Amino acid sequence: MNEQLRLYSYWRSSAAYRVRIGLNLKGLRYETVPVHLVRDGGEQHAPEYREKNPQELVPILQHGNRTMRQSMAILEYLDETWPDTPLLPATARERARARSLAQAIACDVHPLNNLRVLQFLEHSWGVPQAERDEWVRHWIVEGFQAVEAMLAGHVSTGEFCEGDLPTIADCCLVPQIYNARRFSVDMTQFPTIARIEAACLALPAFDAARPERQPDCPQAAAG
Amino acid sequence: MNEQLRLYSYWRSSAAYRVRIGLNLKGLRYETVPVHLVRDGGEQHAPEYREKNPQELVPILQHGNRTMRQSMAILEYLDETWPDTPLLPATARERARARSLAQAIACDVHPLNNLRVLQFLEHSWGVPQAERDEWVRHWIVEGFQAVEAMLAGHVSTGEFCEGDLPTIADCCLVPQIYNARRFSVDMTQFPTIARIEAACLALPAFDAARPERQPDCPQAAAG
Repeated sequence: MNEQLRLYSYWRSSAAYRVRIGLNLKGLRYETVPVHLVRDGGEQHAPEYREKNPQELVPILQHGNRTMRQSMAILEYLDETWPDTPLLPATARERARARSLAQAIACDVHPLNNLRVLQFLEHSWGVPQAERDEWVRHWIVEGFQAVEAMLAGHVSTGEFCEGDLPTIADCCLVPQIYNARRFSVDMTQFPTIARIEAACLALPAFDAARPERQPDCPQAAAG
Repeated sequence: MNEQLRLYSYWRSSAAYRVRIGLNLKGLRYETVPVHLVRDGGEQHAPEYREKNPQELVPILQHGNRTMRQSMAILEYLDETWPDTPLLPATARERARARSLAQAIACDVHPLNNLRVLQFLEHSWGVPQAERDEWVRHWIVEGFQAVEAMLAGHVSTGEFCEGDLPTIADCCLVPQIYNARRFSVDMTQFPTIARIEAACLALPAFDAARPERQPDCPQAAAG
């Protein structure tokens, strides 16, 4: 349990951002190993990183001699290994709802807009920047419309996505909103999502996980 | 616990296929409610379905008066509610590996090739069939290369993805291979994946979940 935690991260990766929130909520200390996703064609494609993660994606979490991949699997691992400050609610039914909200983002929004997809659209198909940005917005808006409908007025929605404590759903939602703002999505369409974002970012665990607080954030963006 | 289980499914949906495998592995009886994803512009877009799932996707699982969305969240719910014949292995470390393999497919392969994405490429961008098929194959091959690397020679890989019992990873892998074959991906590149597929399909739980065994499979495909 006291083995060192090491997070391979990139400041602007929303999948890494999810795990940073989870680690912070549990009060776990960890070392950040920055993996620059753009410089030199992307450090995630270097042989020594590919050996750790054949998917060539961030984040990975090392716990002692264990290497874990996939942000959602990592969050579940954190929750099982350090059950204090749970990232999942108490009942199977509530957990199903929290996980389904998380996955509505982690499966159906984020992967479509990931760097590797945008690079494919640019380099293989020559899709211009404006259309790529449209593509990103399209999937965020479609996803957020569904998530807003699942949250607004639902009896289980509280201060956070599921009840009054942050869960895995909030760990996924907040980084996706960061991406939405980056691509100028109008968040006033999604009042429940925006309200929950504000509640989350008021917590030190979320605030410290923000991209602009990361050691590898360029000074200009940290501003 | 004895409340009725009802799965909103489409025979060829690989996300629904995952849940069918999970239900069968646990020996749970369920009613299939077919949702035709293509006919009449897609029954998943009808107002009465959208009310059940604002994401307008299959599957959803109803358990009594509960409606659950997202195949991975549903599989976790099944495992928590009916712990016999577990879909997750015994230790946190093994569970992290099983989940990460599952999510390498459920997050990073399948959503890119989903019907709604292919429809967007066709209708919004006018991408021709041949390029759309290339797109599908590209993401399957990239994903399977990583999954094959994570499986081949790993000490935890057994008869199945993680150990000698089927897990959530196999529930995701087998439906994705079905898609791969549909798009003529050469599976001889992925010998470990193909070996595990054969082990899975030899089990009645996997066999009964196959698209061509579903009540809504057209006779020609069931052939």
